[in-house]
Amino acid sequence: MTLRSWQITNPRGIDGLTLAETEMPAPGAEEVLVRVRANSINYRDLSTILDPEPRGIAYPRVPNSDGAGDVVAIGDSVSRFRVGDRVAGCFFQKWGDGAINAEIMASAMGGAVDGMLSEYVVLNQAALVKVPVHLSYEQAATLPCAALTAWHSLVHVGNISAGDTVLLIGTGGVSIFALQFAVLHGARVIITSSSDEKLERARQLGAWQTINYRDNPGWDDIAVALTNGNGVDHVVETGGAGTLSRSIEAVRIGGSIGLIGVLTGGEINPTPVMRKSLRMQGIYVGSRAMFERMNMAIESASLLPVVDRDFSFDDAKAAYHHMQGASHLGKITISMPSGY
Amino acid sequence: MTLRSWQITNPRGIDGLTLAETEMPAPGAEEVLVRVRANSINYRDLSTILDPEPRGIAYPRVPNSDGAGDVVAIGDSVSRFRVGDRVAGCFFQKWGDGAINAEIMASAMGGAVDGMLSEYVVLNQAALVKVPVHLSYEQAATLPCAALTAWHSLVHVGNISAGDTVLLIGTGGVSIFALQFAVLHGARVIITSSSDEKLERARQLGAWQTINYRDNPGWDDIAVALTNGNGVDHVVETGGAGTLSRSIEAVRIGGSIGLIGVLTGGEINPTPVMRKSLRMQGIYVGSRAMFERMNMAIESASLLPVVDRDFSFDDAKAAYHHMQGASHLGKITISMPSGY
Amino acid sequence: MTLRSWQITNPRGIDGLTLAETEMPAPGAEEVLVRVRANSINYRDLSTILDPEPRGIAYPRVPNSDGAGDVVAIGDSVSRFRVGDRVAGCFFQKWGDGAINAEIMASAMGGAVDGMLSEYVVLNQAALVKVPVHLSYEQAATLPCAALTAWHSLVHVGNISAGDTVLLIGTGGVSIFALQFAVLHGARVIITSSSDEKLERARQLGAWQTINYRDNPGWDDIAVALTNGNGVDHVVETGGAGTLSRSIEAVRIGGSIGLIGVLTGGEINPTPVMRKSLRMQGIYVGSRAMFERMNMAIESASLLPVVDRDFSFDDAKAAYHHMQGASHLGKITISMPSGY
Amino acid sequence: MTLRSWQITNPRGIDGLTLAETEMPAPGAEEVLVRVRANSINYRDLSTILDPEPRGIAYPRVPNSDGAGDVVAIGDSVSRFRVGDRVAGCFFQKWGDGAINAEIMASAMGGAVDGMLSEYVVLNQAALVKVPVHLSYEQAATLPCAALTAWHSLVHVGNISAGDTVLLIGTGGVSIFALQFAVLHGARVIITSSSDEKLERARQLGAWQTINYRDNPGWDDIAVALTNGNGVDHVVETGGAGTLSRSIEAVRIGGSIGLIGVLTGGEINPTPVMRKSLRMQGIYVGSRAMFERMNMAIESASLLPVVDRDFSFDDAKAAYHHMQGASHLGKITISMPSGY
Repeated sequence: MTLRSWQITNPRGIDGLTLAETEMPAPGAEEVLVRVRANSINYRDLSTILDPEPRGIAYPRVPNSDGAGDVVAIGDSVSRFRVGDRVAGCFFQKWGDGAINAEIMASAMGGAVDGMLSEYVVLNQAALVKVPVHLSYEQAATLPCAALTAWHSLVHVGNISAGDTVLLIGTGGVSIFALQFAVLHGARVIITSSSDEKLERARQLGAWQTINYRDNPGWDDIAVALTNGNGVDHVVETGGAGTLSRSIEAVRIGGSIGLIGVLTGGEINPTPVMRKSLRMQGIYVGSRAMFERMNMAIESASLLPVVDRDFSFDDAKAAYHHMQGASHLGKITISMPSGY
Repeated sequence: MTLRSWQITNPRGIDGLTLAETEMPAPGAEEVLVRVRANSINYRDLSTILDPEPRGIAYPRVPNSDGAGDVVAIGDSVSRFRVGDRVAGCFFQKWGDGAINAEIMASAMGGAVDGMLSEYVVLNQAALVKVPVHLSYEQAATLPCAALTAWHSLVHVGNISAGDTVLLIGTGGVSIFALQFAVLHGARVIITSSSDEKLERARQLGAWQTINYRDNPGWDDIAVALTNGNGVDHVVETGGAGTLSRSIEAVRIGGSIGLIGVLTGGEINPTPVMRKSLRMQGIYVGSRAMFERMNMAIESASLLPVVDRDFSFDDAKAAYHHMQGASHLGKITISMPSGY
Repeated sequence: MTLRSWQITNPRGIDGLTLAETEMPAPGAEEVLVRVRANSINYRDLSTILDPEPRGIAYPRVPNSDGAGDVVAIGDSVSRFRVGDRVAGCFFQKWGDGAINAEIMASAMGGAVDGMLSEYVVLNQAALVKVPVHLSYEQAATLPCAALTAWHSLVHVGNISAGDTVLLIGTGGVSIFALQFAVLHGARVIITSSSDEKLERARQLGAWQTINYRDNPGWDDIAVALTNGNGVDHVVETGGAGTLSRSIEAVRIGGSIGLIGVLTGGEINPTPVMRKSLRMQGIYVGSRAMFERMNMAIESASLLPVVDRDFSFDDAKAAYHHMQGASHLGKITISMPSGY
Repeated sequence: MTLRSWQITNPRGIDGLTLAETEMPAPGAEEVLVRVRANSINYRDLSTILDPEPRGIAYPRVPNSDGAGDVVAIGDSVSRFRVGDRVAGCFFQKWGDGAINAEIMASAMGGAVDGMLSEYVVLNQAALVKVPVHLSYEQAATLPCAALTAWHSLVHVGNISAGDTVLLIGTGGVSIFALQFAVLHGARVIITSSSDEKLERARQLGAWQTINYRDNPGWDDIAVALTNGNGVDHVVETGGAGTLSRSIEAVRIGGSIGLIGVLTGGEINPTPVMRKSLRMQGIYVGSRAMFERMNMAIESASLLPVVDRDFSFDDAKAAYHHMQGASHLGKITISMPSGY
C-alpha cells in the first residue's frame, strides 16, 4: 500500500514541488499513523520551499508544519490516542512542556523533519494533540503554528488580562489569532493594516481600534494617544525591524513585546528598551502543553479560526502561489479529497 | 463645618452603632478630601461591628472598608487627583504595589484605621483610585474589597486563562465577582449554592455549571466528573475548613486554591495538598496596582457589579441587619442622601 | 545472560524481599541499558516494601527510585547518551519539563514501574541524566529523589535568593540537601532536630542557627525571634501535620511553605494560611530539567552529598533495617560489588 | 543654621559645579532629616553634570543619586526610622515595590529631583533604607544605583540559581556588583575587560573565566565554547549596542539579557532575539523592596563593596575628573569631613 506526499526535491521553488508515491509506513511502539485530512500553510513553509538550501533542508523533504486528520492505527504502548481520534501534529515534535532548547528546535516539522503535506504520516504519540470537537479538519489544521504562536505570546508570556491593551501589527495569520485570543480574554486590540477592508474585517472580529498605517505612518503615536498617553501593554510584533522601532515607541513603560516570525532585515536602536524597562521576548511557536491549553480555550469558546481559502491536495502548488501573490486575511488551507 | 459618621463606640453590635458629628477635616499635603457618596458592606465589616474587642478595635472607629465618592478638595503636592474626580478608597491604605507585609496589614480601613461610613473622609492620595466611568457610586463602592479579592485570586495569583475551569464556593460577594471575572477571561465556572434560585441567577451571569450542594453533598466528585475526571484548575475558596477539604478533592493535580475570607473554624488534612502538588495561596484583598488594573477591565468590558439592595446612610443599621438575616446575592450598599 | 534484582513479591516487608534472576533485556529504540552501580534509599522506598498492597504495587516489583551507573548499550535513535556515560535515572520516567500531571505521576520508579535495585536496567533515554563528574556512584545515587525534592522546593518554587532565611524541619535526606542548597545560594538556615549531635553536624554543613525541638517545643517562636520578629521566608516542611502548624507560625507574612514527603497523619487549621497570605505548595520530586540544572549547580560547586552508610547489594535488606531502626544523618546507599 | 551642597547651576560641566550654602530644612510629616556622610558616583551622575540641558535638568540641581548617612531628625508620623539609624537614600524616591511606571521614573534623585551631594537632605521615610551594619558610610553609599541595578538584573529578573553561567561586560560598577552577587548565589561568572590587571582582580573576586576582549575580539565565541557550545544563561549587558550584538550571540537558546545603563549609540539586528527565544529586559535601577532584600544578602554574607578611591566633599570635582580620566575598578566615593 502506498501514500502520496508533496516533496521538496530541488531548489526550484513552488513549481519544483514533486508529488511522490511511497510505501505506507507502520507505526512503531509509541507511534500513531494519521490519515491527514487538511493542512494549513505559513510564510515559513513558503520560504522553505522557495529557499531550501540556505535553510539546510535535506532532499527529499515533505513541507508544512500544520496538518490535522484521523488516527487510523496505533503502535504498541500508545496510551494517549485511539483509532478514530481527530488530531493535529505539533510544530515541534519534541516540545512537550517547559522551556525550549536546542534539541527541541531540531524537531520542527516541515524543516528539520518531514512535514504534513502527505496523505498519511507516522508521528510519536507525544507529538500530537486532539483537536477541538467543533472544528473542521481545515479549521483544525490552522492551529499548530500561527494560533499557538499567538497564544504563546499573549497568554503564556504576555500573561494577558482583561482590560489590557494589545497592539497587533498587520492582519497575518498570527495577528488574527492574537486578535481572537485577546478579545476572548477581555483585552482591547489596536490593529494595523494598509487595507481598510481588512481593518473592517478586524473590527468585525472584535478589534477595539484600527489604524491604516499607509494613511498614518505615525501609527505608534496614535497607539499612544489611544491609551491616554501611556502606551499599550503588549505588542505581538510580527512585522520586522522596521515596525519594531515603532512598536517600541508604542508600548508603555514596563510593557512587553513578543518578537515573532520571519523578521525582515534591518536594525533597531536598543536604547529605548532599556530606558522604558521593556521586556522583549523571542517567541517560537510553542509546546504541546500550551497547545492543549489553547485547544481547551478554543473549544469552550467555540472560537472559529478564520480561513481565507481552501485548495485541494492535488492543487497544493496553487495554495503557495496564492499566499505569494494575493491579498488575503486568515489562513490558507489544503484539503485532501474526502473519498480517497 | 461638620460631618456625620457612624462609629463603633462599644461592643453592643449593630444597634450599638453611634451617629457622630465631628469637625470637617482639611486635607494635608498629599491628602485628598472625599465627599463619600456610597458604601458597600462585607462580612468582615459586620464581624467588626459585632465583635470589636477581640479584634483590637479602638473606640471610636468608623467602620467599613468600601466607599466611593467625589474629590472635593486636595492638599499641597497632590498630583494624582483633581477636584471632581470620582474615586474609591483602597482597603489597605498603604499597599501600592508588590508584596504584602506587616506595615500594609496595619493599614486596613474600617479596622486598624477609620473606614468609609462617613459623609466625608480625608485620605492620602496614594490610597485612592479613580472608578470606572460607567458605574454609579453604589456600584463603584462594591469594588474595594470583594471585587479586588476575586481579581487578586483569579488574575494575579491564579493567572487565569481562557479555557480554564474555575470552581466557586457559594454566591457571596467575592464569588459573584469571581464569576464575572472568570467569564470575562473566557474561563468556565462551576458554582455551588444551596439555593436553586441563586444558581439560576449565576447561570444568567454566565456560569457554565451549577451544583446545589444541599441536594449534592458530594459536589467535589461532581466537579471532577464535569472536568472529565481531571478536576478543576482553580478554586476560589470562600467557604471554610469544611468546604476546603472538598475543594482539595475537586482541584486537578497541579491546580491552585485561593484561600479567602473569614474562614469558619475547622481543620483539614494537608496530605492531599502534597500528594496532588497543589498550590494553596492565602489571598487578602489586594494592592492599589491590582485595583487600577481591575478597573481597566471593568471599564473596558462595561461590567456591572451585582447590587442586592441599597440602604440609606441614616438607615445604615438596617443594612447590617439585612446582611445578617436575609438571603441575598450580590453586594449590599449604603447611599448618602443626594441632597446633603 | 541474566541479571539479578531484588523484588517485592509479597506483603511480608523487608525480610520478604526476593533476589530474582531474570533475562538481561536489550534496549529498544530510544532506550539505554544501564549497569547499575549504586542505589540510595528513601522512606518512600521503605514504605513501599512494608506496605505494598495498600499502595497498589503489582508483584513482582523492583523497588527503589534512586540509582546510578554506567551506560553499557544503547538502542536505535538514542542521541542523548553514549556507552560509558555515567548516569542516574529520573524518579518520574515521564517528567521531562514543565508541570506535573497524572501521566507523569503514573511513571514513578520503584512504585508504578520497576525501580533501580537491579544489576541492570533498561530506561528510555528521556528518563536519564548525566551525573556530576566529581561524584562516586554512591554519591550520585543519592540525587534523584531527596536532592531533587529539596532543589524543587527551594530553587524552582521558593525562588531562593541570598539573604533569605530558610527553616528546615529535622535532618532527613531532603533537609540535609536543602541545607546545602540554601547555603550555596547565600541563604541562612535554621534547622531543627532532637539530637544535639545532628545539629552540630548541621552547623558544620553551614546552618546559621539550630534548635533542639525536644528541649524547645516552641521552636516556631524561636524561629520568629531569630528573624527579628518577622518570621522566616521559606519552610521546607518534611515533618507532617504536627510540625506544619508550627511551621505556619514560623513563616513571615507572604512567605512560602513547601509541603513534602510522607506526611504523618493529623490535621491543621488553614486560617493562618489565609490571614498571613502564605503560599503552601505541594512538592513531589521534580522534572528532568530541574535535575539537570541541579547537577550543574552540584558540579560547579563540587558539592558533596552526605552519605550515612553504604551497604552491599547482597545485603540490601540490612540497608532498610538500618533506615528503620538506627539514627542516621544523610543518605543510606547500596552498592554493587565492583567485580561483577 | 545652614548646609552646604554642590549644585549644577550651568552647562559648564565639572568645573562649573557650585558649592552653595542654603537654609537647613526641617523634616515635615513622614519626612526624615539625614546628615549625609558619603556619596558614590555613577556615569549617569557624570553625564548629568556634563550635559544638564539636554536632560532637562532644572537649575540649581544637587547632583548624585547615591548617598548614605545618619538620621538626625524625624517628622511627625515617621514610623520606619529613629534618630541614629544609618541609612541610604533610594535612587527612585517613589518606587516602593512592584512595577516601574512613569510616576516612579519622575522621582529619580540627582536628576528629576535633588540628589545627595549635600551635607544634609530631607527625604520621605518611604524613600530610605537601613544599610548593612558591617559597612562604612562610603561602602554603603555605593549601593543605591550600581548594586541595586546588578541585583535587579540577576536576582529579580534573571532569577539566578547556583550552577548558572553569567556573562559580564567590562568591570564597571554594575559588573563588579553582579560578579559578587553571582558568586554569592553559586553561579559561574565569565567577565570581559581590556585590562589583564582588572581581570586578575575579577578572578580574586571569584570570576570563573576572564576574557581580554582587546586580545580576543571574538569573545562571544569564547563564551559559547566555555559553556560546551550552549551559551551562557544570563548577560548583564552594560556595554552598548556594540557589545549587545555579541552578547546575543553568547547567550544560550532561551537565555536572558539584562539591558542596562547609558548605552552608547548604535543599532542591533533583532532577528537572533526571536530565533533564539531570548528574553531581553530593560533594567532601570530597582525598587526599595529589592534594595531591602539585597541589603539582607549583603549583610548576611558580610559582602564588601569594592571602593576604588575616596575623595573629600570639598574636593568633589576631583572625583568626577577621576571617573572621566583614570582607569579604575570599583566605585568612586566622596566623603564628608568627619568633624563637621
